Amino acid sequence: MHFTLGQIASFVKGEIVGNDKHHIIGVSQIQDAKVGTITFLSNPLYNKYLHKTKADAIFVTKSSLLKKGQMGIVVQNPQLAIAKTLELFYPTKKQKPSIHKTAVISKDAKIGNNVSIGPMVCIESGVVVGNGCLIGANTVIGKNSSLGKKSVLHTNISIYNDVIIGSNVIIHSGTVIGVDGFGYVTIDNIHEKIPQTGNVIIGDNVEIGSNCSIDRATIGSTIIGDMTKIDNLVHIAHNVKIGRGCLLTAGFAIAGSSEIGDYCTFAGQVGVAPHLKIGNNSIVASKSGVTKSLKGGKVYAGFPARNIKEHNKRQAMINQLGKLKDKIDSLI
Amino acid sequence: MHFTLGQIASFVKGEIVGNDKHHIIGVSQIQDAKVGTITFLSNPLYNKYLHKTKADAIFVTKSSLLKKGQMGIVVQNPQLAIAKTLELFYPTKKQKPSIHKTAVISKDAKIGNNVSIGPMVCIESGVVVGNGCLIGANTVIGKNSSLGKKSVLHTNISIYNDVIIGSNVIIHSGTVIGVDGFGYVTIDNIHEKIPQTGNVIIGDNVEIGSNCSIDRATIGSTIIGDMTKIDNLVHIAHNVKIGRGCLLTAGFAIAGSSEIGDYCTFAGQVGVAPHLKIGNNSIVASKSGVTKSLKGGKVYAGFPARNIKEHNKRQAMINQLGKLKDKIDSLI
Amino acid sequence: MHFTLGQIASFVKGEIVGNDKHHIIGVSQIQDAKVGTITFLSNPLYNKYLHKTKADAIFVTKSSLLKKGQMGIVVQNPQLAIAKTLELFYPTKKQKPSIHKTAVISKDAKIGNNVSIGPMVCIESGVVVGNGCLIGANTVIGKNSSLGKKSVLHTNISIYNDVIIGSNVIIHSGTVIGVDGFGYVTIDNIHEKIPQTGNVIIGDNVEIGSNCSIDRATIGSTIIGDMTKIDNLVHIAHNVKIGRGCLLTAGFAIAGSSEIGDYCTFAGQVGVAPHLKIGNNSIVASKSGVTKSLKGGKVYAGFPARNIKEHNKRQAMINQLGKLKDKIDSLI
Repeated sequence: MHFTLGQIASFVKGEIVGNDKHHIIGVSQIQDAKVGTITFLSNPLYNKYLHKTKADAIFVTKSSLLKKGQMGIVVQNPQLAIAKTLELFYPTKKQKPSIHKTAVISKDAKIGNNVSIGPMVCIESGVVVGNGCLIGANTVIGKNSSLGKKSVLHTNISIYNDVIIGSNVIIHSGTVIGVDGFGYVTIDNIHEKIPQTGNVIIGDNVEIGSNCSIDRATIGSTIIGDMTKIDNLVHIAHNVKIGRGCLLTAGFAIAGSSEIGDYCTFAGQVGVAPHLKIGNNSIVASKSGVTKSLKGGKVYAGFPARNIKEHNKRQAMINQLGKLKDKIDSLI
Repeated sequence: MHFTLGQIASFVKGEIVGNDKHHIIGVSQIQDAKVGTITFLSNPLYNKYLHKTKADAIFVTKSSLLKKGQMGIVVQNPQLAIAKTLELFYPTKKQKPSIHKTAVISKDAKIGNNVSIGPMVCIESGVVVGNGCLIGANTVIGKNSSLGKKSVLHTNISIYNDVIIGSNVIIHSGTVIGVDGFGYVTIDNIHEKIPQTGNVIIGDNVEIGSNCSIDRATIGSTIIGDMTKIDNLVHIAHNVKIGRGCLLTAGFAIAGSSEIGDYCTFAGQVGVAPHLKIGNNSIVASKSGVTKSLKGGKVYAGFPARNIKEHNKRQAMINQLGKLKDKIDSLI
Repeated sequence: MHFTLGQIASFVKGEIVGNDKHHIIGVSQIQDAKVGTITFLSNPLYNKYLHKTKADAIFVTKSSLLKKGQMGIVVQNPQLAIAKTLELFYPTKKQKPSIHKTAVISKDAKIGNNVSIGPMVCIESGVVVGNGCLIGANTVIGKNSSLGKKSVLHTNISIYNDVIIGSNVIIHSGTVIGVDGFGYVTIDNIHEKIPQTGNVIIGDNVEIGSNCSIDRATIGSTIIGDMTKIDNLVHIAHNVKIGRGCLLTAGFAIAGSSEIGDYCTFAGQVGVAPHLKIGNNSIVASKSGVTKSLKGGKVYAGFPARNIKEHNKRQAMINQLGKLKDKIDSLI
């Protein structure tokens, strides 16, 4: 498959530098690009490769970035342009919808139109699968759970009962949704299980990575808001509420009943204690431990998580302890 | 389904404030309760909702907590009362035991009475499944492993060979038990695998969350004691021994050959180094890193984990570094 | 099964102390050894058990370590000797190769000789499985992925499409390889998915633990080098490159496009930020957070990760803050 530079520029609405008839045969990364491909410069860490790359053309934000004779396409957002170009070169293959004969589907389940169900899938009674959904091999959907339209469940996924999943949702392999929350009443060293009678509700356009665990609510619902994206190996406890458009990076774990606002970003391996509220547009740096509710619109870091400026100041203070000690010793 | 306040009070052995004939139609959380339901006040963080809640009745520890006209049930432990009330409203449905025709069960396996085995379950030779067990779809039980009575294995679980699981155990989806420990002998940069020839023994009344990994012993047994409860995404290495009634919260990881006493609590994302001993009734705060053996009966925090009082003092010292610096500068 | 001390000594090329005709019936750990067995002393933490152990014989590095009358085998590396002895007592059972009738294997897949495929395995079109491979129950291998020779995939594993796996690789249950990277372009609060069009390449003699997640590259390949060993619950993001012979311990997480050299060791729960380069033979202590590229051949610790000497000095400084404060107060 190949496209001319002109076709690509027109697809991404960019401005050509060079020959619009030039053939592009694929997409590369700037640091190890192949001849014949198009690449992009977005992260300034990679500036050093700009004039050395073997790619035939580069998405850049200004034509002046290109060296003499280098071809490119000027766009506002090179990362977006490369994403669109990848769609061009790797169009989603429309699978002919089919239900594999080895799938075990309850007679009481409602399966929509144009649904694909892989081998050894198990769909229990009362399940509703919307039109255009795709369910990968060995995935299990428990009683009375439902999928909206065009949602994709990959392989070996476990959905417990009564889970409500929206439309255009993608769930990756090995993820478990609706598992019992970690709730016990301890009396005389005996941990009595608190029945976990609630469910999980997942909004539209959510993506959930592999090997994640999302607990059902003890009472009510654990909620993941529309457009939130979740990386691999993330833990979401019972009764947690996550807002719209959040990004939860790998290894993130949030304890019971905490609530996260809209458009928050949590970097990798962050933990959030139970019963907290995190305001909209909060950003929390990697490995932080959030122990108190946080106001929205700010960046936090450390354990306990603080405003990142305070955190950095505190770290700088520690770094100067040697000098501080020397000063004191000089006074004595 | 509904019960009168009198029926509920009698079930939880509490004392009614209000009308014992009043109908209760469900259970709610105090902060977003629905009319007609009963709720509870246990965590003081939620005191502010006590007089505002829309619930018809509240489990409280003292009748004086209720405002005039508010109905409730006075109990010693409102959390326990709500757990029992949930059992009342959501009784465990007795499934008619059945073995799905698609399950692949070795002829050499011994399956007890009243066992339910879901679709596509794989049970290898020499496996013993006790009476009343329930095994969810797509779960695999390896050679010569055994389950006691009334244990529940959810879906997509992998049990390796020779694993011994007790009675009344609950294991959630995606969990792997008996996987090889991470053991190599390194010679001239080559990591030779040490055969992992031991097994895993899990006591009675244990609950294990989803996507956990429990390694088999290199030699001997990895042991999880009776009544221990394990959250999601927990790693337990080879030859670890966990005592009775421990609580291991999500993201907890413990390295090879370490031993934890009885009734210990580890909060989220804690790590424990190899070859350590943790005494009975230890509590370790979230994100701590345990690098030395710990005496029992104390609370620890930080990395390296220290007595929490020392830890807090050390943190407070750091917080005052700015003032300390000012003092010094004023002396010069 | 039993062997004489002489047979074992000859197998591990060690020197006998005691009776070479003495029968050994198994292998034990030194602290809880059983009569009749052989054990080993490698970690000095266990020195205290040397003269108390109930084992009949011990692998030691010097005969002088044994007390009078104690039998043993003197070897250079007792851990290696016990590994070999375990192989002797627990030889890998050669399973007769067979393909279970419930496996769903595409007609377009190429399955080598002497391959074992378990129940309910799903192998999609274009997959190549090399000679002597073993694939456990309920594992799924996506389109056009390939396995080299004698590789072992345990149960409930998900391999996405186009993943290339080498020879003599072991992958444990619940692991997911080739899942989409966590890549979005965010415009006006909308996270547009960047197509993840690359793949994963896994070298020869790699072992990967259970419930790991390895992302496919956005463009190009995520690469795991030959002989690298990965523990449970490890996250490897898109476009990461891991060198030869690395050890990645449980809970390790590495972000997108970072590169790790050869023979590096990362202890438990370490995180590595994106776009970094870690030099050959680096060692990073547990729970560290790597935020900058690191020179090879050194040991690092802390968050941000520093040379461990600096880290320890910094920690010691903090520990002396109380004394420092007292000094200052005495000056005022």
